[in-house]
Amino acid sequence: MLMEQMTVNEKGMLEFAGRPCDELAEKYGTPLYVMDEELIRNRMRLYQKTMKKEFGEDADVLFASKACDFKAMYRIAKEENIGVDVVSDGEIFTAFAAGYPMERLIFHGNNKTDDEIRFAMEKQVGTFVIDSEEELDAVEKIAAEKNRVQRIVIRVTPGIDPHTFEAVATGLVDSKFGAAIETGAAMALVKKALHCFHVSLQGFHCHVGSQVFDEEVFVKSADAMFSFAKDVQDKLGFECKEMNLGGGIGVRYVEKDPQLQIEQTMIKLAKHVKELCGLLKMKLPAMRLEPGRSIVADAGMTLYQVGSVKKIPQIKTYVSVNGGMTDNPRYALYRSSYSVVCANRMNEKNQMLCSVVGKCCESGDILQEHVLLPDTVQRNDLIAVLTTGAYNYSMASNYNRIVRPAVLMIHKEGEYLAVQRETFEDLIKNEF
Amino acid sequence: MLMEQMTVNEKGMLEFAGRPCDELAEKYGTPLYVMDEELIRNRMRLYQKTMKKEFGEDADVLFASKACDFKAMYRIAKEENIGVDVVSDGEIFTAFAAGYPMERLIFHGNNKTDDEIRFAMEKQVGTFVIDSEEELDAVEKIAAEKNRVQRIVIRVTPGIDPHTFEAVATGLVDSKFGAAIETGAAMALVKKALHCFHVSLQGFHCHVGSQVFDEEVFVKSADAMFSFAKDVQDKLGFECKEMNLGGGIGVRYVEKDPQLQIEQTMIKLAKHVKELCGLLKMKLPAMRLEPGRSIVADAGMTLYQVGSVKKIPQIKTYVSVNGGMTDNPRYALYRSSYSVVCANRMNEKNQMLCSVVGKCCESGDILQEHVLLPDTVQRNDLIAVLTTGAYNYSMASNYNRIVRPAVLMIHKEGEYLAVQRETFEDLIKNEF
Repeated sequence: MLMEQMTVNEKGMLEFAGRPCDELAEKYGTPLYVMDEELIRNRMRLYQKTMKKEFGEDADVLFASKACDFKAMYRIAKEENIGVDVVSDGEIFTAFAAGYPMERLIFHGNNKTDDEIRFAMEKQVGTFVIDSEEELDAVEKIAAEKNRVQRIVIRVTPGIDPHTFEAVATGLVDSKFGAAIETGAAMALVKKALHCFHVSLQGFHCHVGSQVFDEEVFVKSADAMFSFAKDVQDKLGFECKEMNLGGGIGVRYVEKDPQLQIEQTMIKLAKHVKELCGLLKMKLPAMRLEPGRSIVADAGMTLYQVGSVKKIPQIKTYVSVNGGMTDNPRYALYRSSYSVVCANRMNEKNQMLCSVVGKCCESGDILQEHVLLPDTVQRNDLIAVLTTGAYNYSMASNYNRIVRPAVLMIHKEGEYLAVQRETFEDLIKNEF
Repeated sequence: MLMEQMTVNEKGMLEFAGRPCDELAEKYGTPLYVMDEELIRNRMRLYQKTMKKEFGEDADVLFASKACDFKAMYRIAKEENIGVDVVSDGEIFTAFAAGYPMERLIFHGNNKTDDEIRFAMEKQVGTFVIDSEEELDAVEKIAAEKNRVQRIVIRVTPGIDPHTFEAVATGLVDSKFGAAIETGAAMALVKKALHCFHVSLQGFHCHVGSQVFDEEVFVKSADAMFSFAKDVQDKLGFECKEMNLGGGIGVRYVEKDPQLQIEQTMIKLAKHVKELCGLLKMKLPAMRLEPGRSIVADAGMTLYQVGSVKKIPQIKTYVSVNGGMTDNPRYALYRSSYSVVCANRMNEKNQMLCSVVGKCCESGDILQEHVLLPDTVQRNDLIAVLTTGAYNYSMASNYNRIVRPAVLMIHKEGEYLAVQRETFEDLIKNEF
């Protein structure tokens, strides 16, 4: 099966990390996000172990928490001793509330407001990723007010095409993020930062995009970034101490997706980076990588209940479930592929072509088109959408006033609700 | 200007319903949804007055509340004596909490769960719109348990192409909504309903789509629906007592959009419907229309603050604001057009072509492309996105852990926060 923690029991029922889906649905209700804590921890360990082994002890893996940003995730990251990348004051607050050490946070974002910068400094966030000149000015000014020297890295756009979907491509020159190497904007921003008294430049950051399946993309990013760092060293005398190549390792959502081996990709990248430093006569900086999706996506699935099966002869069959774009907007946003199964009919033949749709009053509320399910599917059956651990809970909305589902975390010794299902009272708590 | 409640003062500052935007931003912070209560009330009155005048006293306008579904909206609908269409238990709960009379609610949705049906009956919701056979069975069963007879109408897909965007087209035969006339599914569902003991069929409902600018679409819907009703009368002896033609009247988002006159469209439709009933020898049923967007869209705007202006020579200029797809996902979802202005530079020439983007860590976080703004725009300037009264607050998310903005309601005597800005504590309230 696509996800290693899935099996089928003798009743033809899907089991997730050893738990039958009917029991999970009965106990916790649906829709329900279910996550496998062991898999998350193993993935974090694999990344960190390989990172330290290949790049040395001062290297660090940072979990890109926007992929899945509730309190338990920050706690797990702390326990697994990996860094965390945050993108807003709200993420900083959540990490803080979870007891995550603030000095290990790296604060991203193309538009940090003055209030956010102030908040992040008050919370002693370790490193800011500076995205623009305006932001550098604001950080310098606020750090001065607070009589503080803020560690920063500068976000650079290396002009690499990640061959991915437009909405998740971020490393091109045409990007809202960072300062382009090609146009000279990156060099100008570094120069300015080196003249600031209240920031301490550590190095550079780039992120070329998400769902990257080609190892060469990371190698090319490294080429562009180290060549830039060398140029900075030659021209401005600044030696890069920290090099952050971002994230983007692709995840398999459907069987036909390619698979990128995390360990192998990192080994190849490390070999290349070390050769590069040799060639350029640079000291290997403290390396950073920021995986998000590839840590959590296939650790999660979403469990729904069927409401209706509408067979329109010669046209289409619609299977409606009790969630949809509110808990998983990724098909509506990007036409993302997902694998969908009928959890209580795993031993039946999937021969009915259908669209699995949500319960929102909107035609665009589709979870997946062209799905094959058993033709016996009916109201109250269970549908599982796989690989929903990333960008589902974190992107959920209350459209149509639908409450957001609970997140059930399963681990070796048991299970717990990492996030409780919202209540109706939650919907109106800020309304008069 | 596009919105009638907007003016510009002597300082070149945009005013909304007489309030200067700089004062609003200062007092309530940004991003901020600002809404004009007078305009909402006037629109509701116009609809209801025209409805009663053209279709008779038993006709009713229903506000499609999913367009904008916080408590104050239900209160306003109650005070203006119009019906309300709801699509989930969460909307029913919100209407209830706002003191809206439950018997006037019409309960829509392609997938009502058993729990939702139970909840709606306990709250004495007036009418259910039955969407499928499974739903009819469930309503009959639960009504029997509760020893109740539930008023229903049946949702029918008339096979009308609304010439609109795919994600908001709902009246085609290929739809997750309702039962198609063409395939015989609608007739079969009516027949079944007439044999149920615990539902009382009142009539039919259709909704062909959103953003309709062609009056003929409504006329054609009426043709299809009345011809169906006549067919039902002839074959099954059921006389249609309630006919609901849904909503969909288009709204102008940009200057070049066409404009559909509400009153004129209703007059034309009423004339046609009355002639049709004469021709078909049918009694005019109690008519229903369900406007949502056309009541609230141009009653609202969103006010943002600029974070950075990134000019990439020969490529593009990015203006980043402190909100984005989290408070308005409509560009990310549908590439929707919006008019965008620099609220504090209304007298300057708009000569800088740019993309106005949000603060999410995602390239797809765009509010609008190809916007013309003054080339003096800089950090801390105010950006107003117009016509955001519909499907903005109701579709908002906490992606990137960004808190949802407040909704400020302005009326003749003053202003009040209909929705308070979310807090960090709200973000983690259900997390462990």
